[in-house]
Amino acid sequence: MPKSRPQGPRRHQHTGPQQRPEQRAVPDRQGERRSGAPKAEPQWVWGLHPVRAALANKRRTIKRLLAAPQAQGGVAALAKDRNIPVEIVEPGRIANLVPPDSVHQGVAALLAPMEAMDIQDAVEGQPGPRRVVVLDQVTDPHNIGAILRSSAAFGVAAVIVQDRHTPQVSGIVAKAASGAAEIVPLVRVTNIARALEELEELGFQRIGLADEATGEIGALDRTRDLAIVLGAEGDGMRRLTRENCDLLVSLPTRPQMPSLNVSNACAVALFAVLP
Amino acid sequence: MPKSRPQGPRRHQHTGPQQRPEQRAVPDRQGERRSGAPKAEPQWVWGLHPVRAALANKRRTIKRLLAAPQAQGGVAALAKDRNIPVEIVEPGRIANLVPPDSVHQGVAALLAPMEAMDIQDAVEGQPGPRRVVVLDQVTDPHNIGAILRSSAAFGVAAVIVQDRHTPQVSGIVAKAASGAAEIVPLVRVTNIARALEELEELGFQRIGLADEATGEIGALDRTRDLAIVLGAEGDGMRRLTRENCDLLVSLPTRPQMPSLNVSNACAVALFAVLP
Repeated sequence: MPKSRPQGPRRHQHTGPQQRPEQRAVPDRQGERRSGAPKAEPQWVWGLHPVRAALANKRRTIKRLLAAPQAQGGVAALAKDRNIPVEIVEPGRIANLVPPDSVHQGVAALLAPMEAMDIQDAVEGQPGPRRVVVLDQVTDPHNIGAILRSSAAFGVAAVIVQDRHTPQVSGIVAKAASGAAEIVPLVRVTNIARALEELEELGFQRIGLADEATGEIGALDRTRDLAIVLGAEGDGMRRLTRENCDLLVSLPTRPQMPSLNVSNACAVALFAVLP
Repeated sequence: MPKSRPQGPRRHQHTGPQQRPEQRAVPDRQGERRSGAPKAEPQWVWGLHPVRAALANKRRTIKRLLAAPQAQGGVAALAKDRNIPVEIVEPGRIANLVPPDSVHQGVAALLAPMEAMDIQDAVEGQPGPRRVVVLDQVTDPHNIGAILRSSAAFGVAAVIVQDRHTPQVSGIVAKAASGAAEIVPLVRVTNIARALEELEELGFQRIGLADEATGEIGALDRTRDLAIVLGAEGDGMRRLTRENCDLLVSLPTRPQMPSLNVSNACAVALFAVLP
């Protein structure tokens, strides 16, 4: 993905933690700290998929790489390629770095945050028809991880989230993403409604998923660039988000259970609009 | 769903906890106890969707119903219909009954286990073409809950799981299912391979999802009764499960991320085979 960008809409460039307002940090239910304005600090990730994906991602700076003796084979070749030393440690040391009962498979890596990317960075040069996912205040790290994973599986150019309400890509997100956090850029914007305006300028049709919508996802023009917009569970999309969509569509669900888990809804929508 | 069943294949009838071997109980990562052979004991569920769904389910016995003063309006009418007294309590008392940081919305109910149902009970009388989901050792309660929810949304007659490796429908499953645990029967069987044989006898084509399969989900005959079979993440389906499928198919994912989260894969597969 080219980092140079001559001109064009770029109002939402992610400009780094120093410009974010101070927010109260609250612990999420996994026991990690989640912040209104998360600091982009190095994060431990664990498990073979996330660690191997980070090693394979040349854009990712890896500050430390730990492996238990019996697990080092899973990362040795990739680490050698990148010239990253493997610290051989007891499995218990890795267990102490990660949340209780995490499946770390004997490997963990401390990752520097990815360089921030804006929407245009993420989508330009991608083969069309392009797809992006826009999340309006989806905060659960398992859902965000699963959405990154489905996005990687279905060729999405970027997952766009509101900076202030989205947890930093943590070990839990990375584990749920199963390596996809290294494949699909998570673009953090200040304002979702303005990001949707920018997507329009970039040629995307903005498709909001809403249980009550009468539009059918099967009727969309799949030859177009599409932005799939999903709201938080319970509350759905906020008014301004909704108003900045070109079309609202629903999935063909039964009246007795009109809505899916947000990551399931996202996966189904992406599948439904595969080019 | 009729409870009388004159004859036919019924080898896997769930015969109650007294016939299950003793298993070591292990805490799962949500801090609940999960057991190899879970005892069907009353379970607390919380949150408006799960509690309201339980109240609306005439087959469900509700042992207690708690509501905070400001939340009782959400359950009062349904409780009155069923003649179930509402215990008005401080929200803190509900918070003490549920896992830390759970979103209980001021309501909780103690539910008696559902009467066990076998495969034939669950599928007979359902309008065709019928769908069932078979889970081979999927154990994460969030995934099971999300799968129940997608199954309810897409009209699945039953979700079939191996009794020994599947947690009891807990509050966490019920919350993730968002009421679907009251809609879609979770049929617990002793042996998945034999359940697949029974499904064949009942006229189902058994479709295994496997990343490496060359069959395409889009090529299935959607006019048939279909059983969608999913394996545990990581290990996939076990050999015997795989051998008892009629066809293996994959989803049209990119090589860089061939597999989805199991609940996402299930939702996509169910959408792909909607009649």
